[in-house]
Amino acid sequence: MGRPNDELAQDNFSTVRVGLLGCGNVGCALVSLIDAESEAIAERTGVRLAITRIAVRDLAKRRSVPEIASRLTDDPMSVVEDEEIDLIVELIGGIEPAESLIEAALREGKSVVSANKDLLASRGTKLHDLAASAGRDLLYEAAVGGAIPLVRALSVSLAGERVHRVMGIVNGTTNYILTRMSESSASYEEALIEAIKLGFAEADPTADVEGYDAAAKTAIMASIAFNADITAHDVYCRGITEIVVADIDFASRRGYVIKLLAVAERFVEGEDESILVRVHPAMIRKSHPLASVHGAFNAVFIEGEHAGELMLYGRGAGGSATASAVLGDLVEAARGLQRVTTFEQPARRHVQIRPIDQLSSTYCITIEAKDRTGVMAEVADVFGSQGVSIRSMEQTDSYSEARMVFITHLARESDVQATLHGLEKLDSVVRLGGLLRVVGDEDE
Amino acid sequence: MGRPNDELAQDNFSTVRVGLLGCGNVGCALVSLIDAESEAIAERTGVRLAITRIAVRDLAKRRSVPEIASRLTDDPMSVVEDEEIDLIVELIGGIEPAESLIEAALREGKSVVSANKDLLASRGTKLHDLAASAGRDLLYEAAVGGAIPLVRALSVSLAGERVHRVMGIVNGTTNYILTRMSESSASYEEALIEAIKLGFAEADPTADVEGYDAAAKTAIMASIAFNADITAHDVYCRGITEIVVADIDFASRRGYVIKLLAVAERFVEGEDESILVRVHPAMIRKSHPLASVHGAFNAVFIEGEHAGELMLYGRGAGGSATASAVLGDLVEAARGLQRVTTFEQPARRHVQIRPIDQLSSTYCITIEAKDRTGVMAEVADVFGSQGVSIRSMEQTDSYSEARMVFITHLARESDVQATLHGLEKLDSVVRLGGLLRVVGDEDE
Repeated sequence: MGRPNDELAQDNFSTVRVGLLGCGNVGCALVSLIDAESEAIAERTGVRLAITRIAVRDLAKRRSVPEIASRLTDDPMSVVEDEEIDLIVELIGGIEPAESLIEAALREGKSVVSANKDLLASRGTKLHDLAASAGRDLLYEAAVGGAIPLVRALSVSLAGERVHRVMGIVNGTTNYILTRMSESSASYEEALIEAIKLGFAEADPTADVEGYDAAAKTAIMASIAFNADITAHDVYCRGITEIVVADIDFASRRGYVIKLLAVAERFVEGEDESILVRVHPAMIRKSHPLASVHGAFNAVFIEGEHAGELMLYGRGAGGSATASAVLGDLVEAARGLQRVTTFEQPARRHVQIRPIDQLSSTYCITIEAKDRTGVMAEVADVFGSQGVSIRSMEQTDSYSEARMVFITHLARESDVQATLHGLEKLDSVVRLGGLLRVVGDEDE
Repeated sequence: MGRPNDELAQDNFSTVRVGLLGCGNVGCALVSLIDAESEAIAERTGVRLAITRIAVRDLAKRRSVPEIASRLTDDPMSVVEDEEIDLIVELIGGIEPAESLIEAALREGKSVVSANKDLLASRGTKLHDLAASAGRDLLYEAAVGGAIPLVRALSVSLAGERVHRVMGIVNGTTNYILTRMSESSASYEEALIEAIKLGFAEADPTADVEGYDAAAKTAIMASIAFNADITAHDVYCRGITEIVVADIDFASRRGYVIKLLAVAERFVEGEDESILVRVHPAMIRKSHPLASVHGAFNAVFIEGEHAGELMLYGRGAGGSATASAVLGDLVEAARGLQRVTTFEQPARRHVQIRPIDQLSSTYCITIEAKDRTGVMAEVADVFGSQGVSIRSMEQTDSYSEARMVFITHLARESDVQATLHGLEKLDSVVRLGGLLRVVGDEDE
């Protein structure tokens, strides 16, 4: 207990030596977990894990884990190349030096566990190919949805399944903000400040609130679900910064909640197949299982041809939950070390990315206009000229302005965008609200 | 397409020959799925599956799959012993001949995929040991929760995790009945007849409504979560036949729903560890994620030391969903065929089973009594004499009888049982309602 370097392998359990790259929040949680529970993990899994070397940038920095000093180095490549090390855990994040280190590890014949969503969302296919040709594992359950066993569900349990759509709430920060705006009518700014105070948001929340974090996770989920080469650049991405409490109230009156939704969908038309990947605020029916995912929780809803509807739910972030996901991967990779794998994974396919322009959806459009006669006719004319049919309209007046909220029938994104451009040009229109797409409501 | 016996292996994908034992609802769904999608599955997974032989009891019976006749036999052992066959799928159900066939297959060096919950809940440890010593896979994702990737989550993703509790709704029939009773105030009998009509319940629903099906699944989940030898006999089991609409209405007024809940919990007191496994109708707070699992859906809620709270949700039954789970296992087993595994899984532990008597819970007790003065005092005296403290009481009168519903503070099961015996002896008590335990509400 707590002395992972000593007296390894006194019994039948094989000891696997792990080199850790990066020791921040998740890294420290992982070291604490494995140092404290190494024996219990061995009894449960048959694998005794020992984190024997840890590469960090700043050797002088104080860390929350005791008895760590003797294992530290500031030369990560020396850990990767250490012949005593069996497995590498990469928790540095970002593209470089993480990418070079993972490549070097795989070339050395070491399996790699990573939680690096940005790297996997941009270089995932290349790293997969490298792992396959090296006959080693590259596992990254922790890169999407914290401890939720989502990556394994898509890559193993549903490997033979024809997945139609994966959609989910994969960013806890924005879900916390939207939940607070909904529950307490806090403004976006107030909810954001609260999230930062409570540690649910970073001091610079850009990656979360603009949807970039969710977009990276969407690319990873889509790549696995459709066995395709999809990167974060392929993902249409809008954040939640334009959402106002009035949007949430309107949605609620109509039976919806607003969530930042990640959606990856497969379209087949004759011989053509395309994948549409998108992240944006969406209206979801309150009865949909995703609607009850509150606060910093994450959940992913999968629709398969044969499996039907599945949902996986849990804590999507936090050092401890993420460390748990890394641990699950480490146990799998450690077990894999004692196998000789000759199985060939098919290469990820290059698929056509369907542009957001071709999305067919129902939309919610908010217009703030001068409160004068004839405005409604002007606005309706713009909708009509683009062939966008209105399902319902709600109008509230304040002072000299009218706030009109339209829900459309099924319409094409390109037509809706043209409608928005047309509306912007009207003298009577003061401001357009953020565009909301309705998701998971296809029957209507 | 549809001609699995012809021209195998024209490309790089290896072809894996599967022998199927049993061809009922799930079996036919599996054959249709693999016959139709063999090429697509190969492209997605790198494994071309072909069901080349199918053992059935009655060769003459009509089946929904075309082009099946040439593959049929009524000698299952000949399939198991066929040297051309790589993998065995067992969908016969029950103990014999399924057990002997699986044992023979593992001894022949063939990995086995099974959906047989009764067999795994009674002989799981023995079969696991046999698979381990044969170095082959024994996979059974389909035995619990249909297509929900629960078995893999517990056995792989959470392998290193210290799981405290697994609880879930694992029987779709009873969940459908309880949902209908709750939504439409149908009686138990009416809801059951509706469930049978719609195919959500068997003509003989005993195994479902008495909780036996859920108990078998609980034993399987507990065995994996705690790496322990736990059988269906260890599971305390009560069904839903005594639930009346009044119970559901009372629960609802207090903020609860009633579900048939499977619970597997680990208790540690000093050096002692014990596992309590139980299935019974339970009251769950409406805000708990399990409370929104409606109709024939299943869901399992897992509480881990580091992973926190996880929930997996989906269709728990049906030929197509179950076939999807079998397919996921088949792909994994097929990939495993090309590995040489030297890894040793630790043996399942023999753990102490905690008797239900030692459960500590809050309870809901319903008493129908003669409506006369002094009854309340007599009843309260029985509670008091057993040290069971009452948190709240609600009384409704009808004709000459009073219906009293008590919710207790935290109490010990043995004391509550003694209270029930004491209450039964009272002249004024006409009938005791079914005992309800509150679950997932420990803070109160």
